Amino acid sequence: MKINGNYKNLAESYLFREVAQRKNAFIKAHPETDVINMGIGDVTLPLCPAVIEEMTKAVAEMGVKETFKGYPDYYGEPYLLDAIQNYYKKSMGVDLSKEEINVTCGAKEDVSNILDIFSSDTVAVVPDPVYPVYLDSNIMSGRKVRFISANPENGFLPMPKDAPEGDIYYLCSPNNPTGACYNYEQLKEWVDFAKNTSSVILFDAAYEIFVEPGLPRSIFEIEGAKECAIEFCSMSKTAGFTGTRCGYTIIPEALKDEDGNAFLPLWKRRQSTKFNGTAHIVQRGAAAVFTEEGYAQIKENIAYYKRNTAVMMKTFDELGIRYYGGKNSPYVWLECPNNMGSWEFFDYLLNNANIVGIPGEGFGKNGEGYFRLSGFGDAERTVEAMNRIKKLFK
Amino acid sequence: MKINGNYKNLAESYLFREVAQRKNAFIKAHPETDVINMGIGDVTLPLCPAVIEEMTKAVAEMGVKETFKGYPDYYGEPYLLDAIQNYYKKSMGVDLSKEEINVTCGAKEDVSNILDIFSSDTVAVVPDPVYPVYLDSNIMSGRKVRFISANPENGFLPMPKDAPEGDIYYLCSPNNPTGACYNYEQLKEWVDFAKNTSSVILFDAAYEIFVEPGLPRSIFEIEGAKECAIEFCSMSKTAGFTGTRCGYTIIPEALKDEDGNAFLPLWKRRQSTKFNGTAHIVQRGAAAVFTEEGYAQIKENIAYYKRNTAVMMKTFDELGIRYYGGKNSPYVWLECPNNMGSWEFFDYLLNNANIVGIPGEGFGKNGEGYFRLSGFGDAERTVEAMNRIKKLFK
Repeated sequence: MKINGNYKNLAESYLFREVAQRKNAFIKAHPETDVINMGIGDVTLPLCPAVIEEMTKAVAEMGVKETFKGYPDYYGEPYLLDAIQNYYKKSMGVDLSKEEINVTCGAKEDVSNILDIFSSDTVAVVPDPVYPVYLDSNIMSGRKVRFISANPENGFLPMPKDAPEGDIYYLCSPNNPTGACYNYEQLKEWVDFAKNTSSVILFDAAYEIFVEPGLPRSIFEIEGAKECAIEFCSMSKTAGFTGTRCGYTIIPEALKDEDGNAFLPLWKRRQSTKFNGTAHIVQRGAAAVFTEEGYAQIKENIAYYKRNTAVMMKTFDELGIRYYGGKNSPYVWLECPNNMGSWEFFDYLLNNANIVGIPGEGFGKNGEGYFRLSGFGDAERTVEAMNRIKKLFK
Repeated sequence: MKINGNYKNLAESYLFREVAQRKNAFIKAHPETDVINMGIGDVTLPLCPAVIEEMTKAVAEMGVKETFKGYPDYYGEPYLLDAIQNYYKKSMGVDLSKEEINVTCGAKEDVSNILDIFSSDTVAVVPDPVYPVYLDSNIMSGRKVRFISANPENGFLPMPKDAPEGDIYYLCSPNNPTGACYNYEQLKEWVDFAKNTSSVILFDAAYEIFVEPGLPRSIFEIEGAKECAIEFCSMSKTAGFTGTRCGYTIIPEALKDEDGNAFLPLWKRRQSTKFNGTAHIVQRGAAAVFTEEGYAQIKENIAYYKRNTAVMMKTFDELGIRYYGGKNSPYVWLECPNNMGSWEFFDYLLNNANIVGIPGEGFGKNGEGYFRLSGFGDAERTVEAMNRIKKLFK
């Protein structure tokens, strides 16, 4: 009886712990200092009124025998599937069947659980730098991982011409941490590549709500994607559900492996065996996001975060500091000034401007020399932080 | 790029679908008939007032910036860990550290996800009949499964002397579907066996709230269990959370594999990578269950379900129909009268008493000739159903 030895191959995940430790040590040494946290990857604005109203109703209904609900559907309640189906149709022009939409407790869970339905000898290709869950979930399952470099030369948007051979390709657009966002032509290249090589794209669209008009928000806006892609989306950033937990994963009926086996029935079987549905209360709240009222409210929140990144972008433009993201993303990914390393810049910024950010090196070795700042914070604090940075680098 | 071929080894899960189909066909053919559903494995009483009150507050707090909460802790919020820790101490005399308690969206998820932290060549030993998730999750991961027979000779409580060699032993007590419940001596035998053979017991305690005084509700009431067992528990049956989703899994710090590797850190790593915590609203509701007020309220609900099983047991006693469970469980597991097969009895009961139950054969081949009836229904309907059965078999 042994542990899963693959876990020993995981790098220790020290990034956010190390950030917190250095921040706390600084605060302890300088208790009078006003430290601004721009490292945050979590939302800060509350759930919108439409969501609160609907969840309040749903809670009350769970307390009355006539309206109480037991086990949810494994794949999402019909009203929420309807809402998501309409959202794709109306806002992106994408036709999905309800069967293809799978509601869960979050995109992070899905993007890692999805490996269950792939053969254990599939090779994953993971961008560097990127959200660490892709790499770690593959390592845990003992799969071989190859990296594709995201770097200034490709605008942190790796393309098929640089792709090593593999079976599963992770794309995250808009990207965490770089904020870079693929355009239609680039995604078309990826879709063509995946179809030609019989591989699958795992498309993480968790930040799609930040995408400006003119760029794709769903890989299914690209012709042919239904034969080669799975898409993960989340209410976390869309509607502030990081602490409320709801996501959805699109697995097209047309997606098949090289022997013609469809993936969707496997996912349905996985979910009915290893999952028991998303809380009714949460699904009711999620559905409220897609009402006219709810959507207007969450767009206001997104506009708030976007004003933060606009302030940040303007600052870095003025200072001539090169950056990526910010426009289609809540993150600004900047080149550390004066050739500083990621952690060097972290310490410099903390000591001299009392600002906390995330060293890019923590997201992969190509992140070295870069730094992630977040637009999820408070508006006034963001302005104050940028004023401090201006003083420091002018 | 291939699917996970292990899925092809899964038996088609037709049990509940077939039950629904036969029931619906009968209703369509006899629209005037009053069919009573005693097949239900879901709760029917609403969430208790203490839970509703706390969740209502929690929803309101999520709508206000000052009290809004983002990402939950991966392993459960401190107040809920406290509540569960106290519950184990006060009601079972079991000491647990907060680290050992892991809160999630449900026990079904945990009992299948737990395989992630075991080596892929571990052999699982699964009772027959039993809740089908144990078998299916092992098959999906390509693990070898051996069966241990639960049958009338061992009171549907298989013991180590009949156990085939393996690494992981699943025990479900009180059992789904048989309702049988191990006593202290029996569990002590299992713990000694697991320690002597360096194997791990996966103890499913989802129905512990139904256990009467004098029998163990947690495997950790048994000396030595912390070195050889993991326990899964759920708010679903305890507090009617089937549609609200919250469970907790106890992994002792002392549990190690044969090379001395502890399992708990692996689970922590798994959860921080493949999970993002349980909704705050849900955790607040779960914590309310463990308050004095909440616990008194849920015990009333359990008493309601127990009155149902008492009516059922009395009926079968009067009729001389042999059964298991009912006392420490919401399920009564009866021997089909007149040597009928499980599906034969299903049809007989549906046609002659208009009652729906679950054929035991659906839980494993040793379930053939048995039938599961549930105490989760309405009290008056349960009495009515038993009156019909009395007429039929007297």
